[in-house]
Amino acid sequence: MNKHILIVPGDGIGQEVTAVGKKVLDKIAEKFGHTFSYDEALIGHVAIEATGNPLPDESLEKMRKSDAVLFGAVGHPKYDNDPSAKVRPEQGLLKMRKELGLYANLRPIKLFDELLGASSIKPEILKGADILFFRELTGDIYFGEKGRKNNGDTAYDIAEYSRYEVERIARKAFDAARTRRKKLCSVDKANVIETSRLWREVVQQIAKEYPDVEVEHQFVDATAMLLIKDPRRFDVVVTANLFGDILTDEASQIAGSMGMLASASIGDGTGVYEPIHGSAHDITGKGVANPLASILSAALLLDISFGMKEESELVISAVDKVLKEGYRTRDIADAATTPENMLGTAAMGEAVLKFI
Amino acid sequence: MNKHILIVPGDGIGQEVTAVGKKVLDKIAEKFGHTFSYDEALIGHVAIEATGNPLPDESLEKMRKSDAVLFGAVGHPKYDNDPSAKVRPEQGLLKMRKELGLYANLRPIKLFDELLGASSIKPEILKGADILFFRELTGDIYFGEKGRKNNGDTAYDIAEYSRYEVERIARKAFDAARTRRKKLCSVDKANVIETSRLWREVVQQIAKEYPDVEVEHQFVDATAMLLIKDPRRFDVVVTANLFGDILTDEASQIAGSMGMLASASIGDGTGVYEPIHGSAHDITGKGVANPLASILSAALLLDISFGMKEESELVISAVDKVLKEGYRTRDIADAATTPENMLGTAAMGEAVLKFI
Ligand SMILES: [Mg+2]
Ligand SMILES: [Mg+2]
Repeated sequence: MNKHILIVPGDGIGQEVTAVGKKVLDKIAEKFGHTFSYDEALIGHVAIEATGNPLPDESLEKMRKSDAVLFGAVGHPKYDNDPSAKVRPEQGLLKMRKELGLYANLRPIKLFDELLGASSIKPEILKGADILFFRELTGDIYFGEKGRKNNGDTAYDIAEYSRYEVERIARKAFDAARTRRKKLCSVDKANVIETSRLWREVVQQIAKEYPDVEVEHQFVDATAMLLIKDPRRFDVVVTANLFGDILTDEASQIAGSMGMLASASIGDGTGVYEPIHGSAHDITGKGVANPLASILSAALLLDISFGMKEESELVISAVDKVLKEGYRTRDIADAATTPENMLGTAAMGEAVLKFI
Repeated sequence: MNKHILIVPGDGIGQEVTAVGKKVLDKIAEKFGHTFSYDEALIGHVAIEATGNPLPDESLEKMRKSDAVLFGAVGHPKYDNDPSAKVRPEQGLLKMRKELGLYANLRPIKLFDELLGASSIKPEILKGADILFFRELTGDIYFGEKGRKNNGDTAYDIAEYSRYEVERIARKAFDAARTRRKKLCSVDKANVIETSRLWREVVQQIAKEYPDVEVEHQFVDATAMLLIKDPRRFDVVVTANLFGDILTDEASQIAGSMGMLASASIGDGTGVYEPIHGSAHDITGKGVANPLASILSAALLLDISFGMKEESELVISAVDKVLKEGYRTRDIADAATTPENMLGTAAMGEAVLKFI
């Protein structure tokens, strides 16, 4: 197959890890006889520095024209303590999601057995947990009107959801549940929030089209607890943008290391694949970032955007083998990791390539 | 001292556990020569059934006139799957908080060593964790305007915070940090939400009045992770209403059992003390609910509303002794719990009374 892939490294360790993800895609192309062509584009802080715009039109155009995007991260610590900054790296991310119509963020939480010990959660609670989150990405409080009044002394944000926004992600989540253990948990705060009441109403309605899928509704605070208490009870979880932001990060910690988790943002056009870790400026440029999440993002890309199941599974099994060999980056190392097995970003990439 | 305490059992197991909490208060009064008088009032589903109103004016009047409120829980499963219900038990809770000006919810997360094993988190991660949450209670998306438009197809909720609302809870949190390990973590989503940007601005300003307190700002999703990864890093955590709702429930699970945790809701008038567990209708009326959180709520009440430090500490140490003796309710039992040590609600209450 001929495919055009856009690499969008973004900020911080995004540069280092997408470089490794790209190498894996290259090796897959070589091995399976595909032709992958590449281009690169700016987003986030690096885009602001270069153009003043966190998502330049040129980047957006390239994204629209590509078959899939392998994305790194956005963010820079200098904005965190400057609440007054008008132009922010995260605006690039939000705009990309909105402009590409990426309304669903998929985050698989599934542990490699070798890393069970890396979690703060007891292995006996965790073993076998396999959750697929669907986080709504284009609505909610992130995109509603926001501002100040009373001379700046009152701030407000409007959360909003329309029926069709809930319907389309609910259908994607139900479809996925059908291919898995046929359980769907919809998370909201319907006891207090109106957008949540609409959310629950719509999910209850769509559920009628999927009588073979078992549905439950949980409040977001209860879910934050249940993820820790009994992660195995979840199969597919579908939720709104803000709740998904919080719960998927919590779930990633349950999984032990953010450095291992990939995500897909999909809609009706180009899909974007990215590690869930952020720009991690504290370790940027040191060559120690874990590239496995970017590699696993490449695997998700192959699977979801290109329908290349076999290629995707080969990548995942290569990661599994590397872990079984005992190779670790710093973030997933444990007491059993020997100094020779402690690898940096590039070396970990090479180790994975050997098994492809 | 003469004090008038209002018992507000509310729904579900609220009835059973506040009855035990009251007995503990009685024993303390007897032992220390105080005179506690009591009255009772309705809230939640039971209030709706009796009067049509989840918080009747009569209840509110009684609350205002009392020196402190020992509260149970509100909620009934029949409303959870009926998003269209206009009158809901939770409205009683929200109205009580608003009318009494209860703008800060304090939730101490501190484990009894005997229960370390009850958590899903590894004991070595957990041991020594001691967090005090301050959740803002009267603002945010819970109280802003909400509704439908486009023929009901679009739902919206407005989140709002004003400077003074952030200031007053920030001061209470900083004050508390001063009496503890002098660390304060303020949690927001300032990279995306305007109310969070105001929140961070104000906390940064108030921080100048407390140069002896070390301040950090975390995003809510990062905090949801850090609570699992490294709970000991937190001392005092202060956050908005919705984020606090989610994070305190997550933290309660870190602590192993919701059945052990108490909370205080305070403002400038009567304080309200309650277990953090809900109405738990699945075990209502079975006599198996864990009364220790209501007992620990009574201890918080003695401490915060009455300034009775010694009395409060005696209650906590009685709970500690009961646990050391091996007594457990069902929710905190483990493999080491013998059948004779497995107690119901009333028996657990009697066990605690013996050590007061
Ligand atoms: Mg997040
Ligand atoms: Mg809650």
